[in-house]
Amino acid sequence: MSENGVLSRAKVLTIDTMNPTVKKVEYAVRGPIVLRAVELERELSEGMKKPFSEVIKANIGDAHAMGQQPITFFRQVLALCSYPELLNDSTFPEDAKSRARRILQSCGGNSMGSYTASQGIDSVRQDVARYIERRDGGVPCDPDDIYLTTGASDGIVTMLKLLVCGEGATRTGVMISIPQYPLYSAALAELGAVQINYYLNEEKCWSMDISELQRALDEARRHCNPRALCVINPGNPTGQVQSRQCIEDVIRFAANERLLLMADEVYQDNVYAEGCQFHSFKKVLFEMGPEYSDTVELVSFHSTSKCYMGECGFRGGYMEIINMDDEVKAQLTKLVSVRLCPPVPGQALMDLVVNPPQPGEPSHDNFIKERTITLSALAEKAKLTEQVLNTIQGISCNPVQGAMYSFPRITIPEKAIQEAMDKGQEPDMFYCMKMLEETGICLVPGSGFGQTDGTYHFRMTILPPTDKLTILLNKVKEFHQKFTQQYS
Amino acid sequence: MSENGVLSRAKVLTIDTMNPTVKKVEYAVRGPIVLRAVELERELSEGMKKPFSEVIKANIGDAHAMGQQPITFFRQVLALCSYPELLNDSTFPEDAKSRARRILQSCGGNSMGSYTASQGIDSVRQDVARYIERRDGGVPCDPDDIYLTTGASDGIVTMLKLLVCGEGATRTGVMISIPQYPLYSAALAELGAVQINYYLNEEKCWSMDISELQRALDEARRHCNPRALCVINPGNPTGQVQSRQCIEDVIRFAANERLLLMADEVYQDNVYAEGCQFHSFKKVLFEMGPEYSDTVELVSFHSTSKCYMGECGFRGGYMEIINMDDEVKAQLTKLVSVRLCPPVPGQALMDLVVNPPQPGEPSHDNFIKERTITLSALAEKAKLTEQVLNTIQGISCNPVQGAMYSFPRITIPEKAIQEAMDKGQEPDMFYCMKMLEETGICLVPGSGFGQTDGTYHFRMTILPPTDKLTILLNKVKEFHQKFTQQYS
Repeated sequence: MSENGVLSRAKVLTIDTMNPTVKKVEYAVRGPIVLRAVELERELSEGMKKPFSEVIKANIGDAHAMGQQPITFFRQVLALCSYPELLNDSTFPEDAKSRARRILQSCGGNSMGSYTASQGIDSVRQDVARYIERRDGGVPCDPDDIYLTTGASDGIVTMLKLLVCGEGATRTGVMISIPQYPLYSAALAELGAVQINYYLNEEKCWSMDISELQRALDEARRHCNPRALCVINPGNPTGQVQSRQCIEDVIRFAANERLLLMADEVYQDNVYAEGCQFHSFKKVLFEMGPEYSDTVELVSFHSTSKCYMGECGFRGGYMEIINMDDEVKAQLTKLVSVRLCPPVPGQALMDLVVNPPQPGEPSHDNFIKERTITLSALAEKAKLTEQVLNTIQGISCNPVQGAMYSFPRITIPEKAIQEAMDKGQEPDMFYCMKMLEETGICLVPGSGFGQTDGTYHFRMTILPPTDKLTILLNKVKEFHQKFTQQYS
Repeated sequence: MSENGVLSRAKVLTIDTMNPTVKKVEYAVRGPIVLRAVELERELSEGMKKPFSEVIKANIGDAHAMGQQPITFFRQVLALCSYPELLNDSTFPEDAKSRARRILQSCGGNSMGSYTASQGIDSVRQDVARYIERRDGGVPCDPDDIYLTTGASDGIVTMLKLLVCGEGATRTGVMISIPQYPLYSAALAELGAVQINYYLNEEKCWSMDISELQRALDEARRHCNPRALCVINPGNPTGQVQSRQCIEDVIRFAANERLLLMADEVYQDNVYAEGCQFHSFKKVLFEMGPEYSDTVELVSFHSTSKCYMGECGFRGGYMEIINMDDEVKAQLTKLVSVRLCPPVPGQALMDLVVNPPQPGEPSHDNFIKERTITLSALAEKAKLTEQVLNTIQGISCNPVQGAMYSFPRITIPEKAIQEAMDKGQEPDMFYCMKMLEETGICLVPGSGFGQTDGTYHFRMTILPPTDKLTILLNKVKEFHQKFTQQYS
């Protein structure tokens, strides 16, 4: 090409010549509302006048950012592992030291700076397996079926990646709940898989209906090849906790319809409502007998990011794969090896979560105390959120049985819907953007998670400290009343 | 489906029904040799008799696992960030405390357990930008062009993902060196992109020839759409350091041929040979004037895993994107947001690498001392490796100018080649597997990186401590002589 050619050079990579599947990806939890919230924070810090003094980010399950305190024991062990000189420091408790020594002994050169096995550190995977066995009342768990991951997201994307194939009418379809956590739709878009929506029943506290699963599946079979069913329990963004019966029905459905089950169980310790209890899909599967437990392919995901620890920044997690074909498992192991290994501090943290201080150990009492404080506060805030939201005319909120979110339904006046449409915005995006500008409260519109046509919602975390949450809920109330008035 | 259907259930996910692009992925650095090495270690620990007492893993650039010591200052800051109670501990130096405070202030709730911005912590990206400006003699760097990543691999895969599109003859092709680091071939296979091989010139110390680039490109244009050129400098697995002239020629080639440049510069501080110097692609690009610096799209990758720090386990890294289209950049930001954020301890570590103790600060002298010890030892081991390997008849090794690897050429007798073929193995895989079984030394066959047809190599890291490296090199010598004799 001539020098002339050089001078007239157009960009290699433009919006028209980039990967089209990437363009289709959407991720509302960090979408336009959040970008605007960050801008507003900057404007505030630069002294610009706003009708509020602070942006409150209730858009994302980011517990520490909202003031939740880390578990002391976990952080002590991480400090010891980071700087092993501290093993000589007498102010650290002995159980923290012995945990740190055990983790370091499993690391090459006794350093968290070494790569680990791609599947994760052996001893951590053994601890995870024992944790699962305790959790599930003795159902056996093989450490070889545990893969440590970079947060649960990494595991979910990896599993979907293994699964997707075919073209046109044989293209892999994956069933996801609506509302959903948008990692699923984003990953499916990127992989070019077919997203199959099944709707949760808002009238029945966001429960799963088998008839709705059947409807969604039957329709999808006309144009793709449905191969997997994703379930989030406790629910995100909807906060429901599934009953044992429901889980059994879902497993039977998956078995009958030959679907691989993906159970996103990262909120397994976030259960607040009376009468609700977390049942793992694995436990229920094994209680259903060998006809199911020997055949149904199930992958369960967990993480260090939620529950009482809330350590999102460490990107720790694991997945357990059950009844997976051996050759596929070998392919999975190969695939994860390309990215070398999950971050070691996250692996260490995952180990602590599944193997916390035991009765009799010096840190046990304080650990229990800290965990209880956090979980009680979350339970209280779940209740408070539901109660206050339900006092607002035009807002109705299902009980927040678990997880970290409320997902109330909001009535948006016809005139506001019209104005949003004119702007090319979803009505609940319009609503949330207005709330952000007027109150500094950052929520995520329901349209980012999916919802039944003609209904509108937002997702709000229950994470702010109780006093701040009270203020926030009252501001939401005030805003909603004003908004309704303005557009009536 | 009937109960009968349930009983006869076949697996949903099998080797025949999984994602075909995943099946094509290969990653030799953690391939069959390494799986066997892990088995051998287990067998040894179970008391099985072997002709060696220890498996030495010289297959992967895992510095701490080979005994390299972490930088004290880095680990002190990480411990302080993990457990901020230690900020009251008078045994920690003040500069470590002030770094830790600054990092924590940039974290939500002053906790490494919070999510950060998806692009990475603002203040860390600012420090990275200033580091790049210093490194490149003042060429400006905008923190908005910095994306923190989960190790360099994550950044490389993300960039390739943005780029790949088209079908058949318009499918995106990406030029990679042969030999290459197999992350590239693995990522391209997974994305279904076309891998375009250009061969490094072994006779000229693994340098890049523009005529070879042209040949590879011209041939590729007949069947795909070449859009990017990947360069690793200093080289992996080949250990060469590119001259400034070579880099300029490569940039001109990329400009003329409209290729996006991806510069893998993770070994930028690993340069040992006299007369060799690291030149960043960005610096050379900007020295070539606005005709180039205003137009050529360049992405450069760095990591916490190599150089004098060798902190692979933390999975820290960054990429700088230069001249990228604004809309594409927005798409990149969206794409990385789906995975929430890179691990925060890795981000903190990246910050320390680009902003280490300064002259006058309490930790400065010790930092310089530790860094010098590590880099001098690596330089010594690079020399030692080259020298000993070149004393072996049938092995010839280019100078290890930089990075952490030697990639010697080995002569394999015809009879051994025949035996390997009969087993369906690559001859150098056969050689390395035999070496592992007889000596416990774990290397990676050249075929895992690619090589000119009919030539054979292995990659060996220079990381073991000098005394162990000497033993290892002598064992390689002994093995090679015996192997040659046996098959002559």
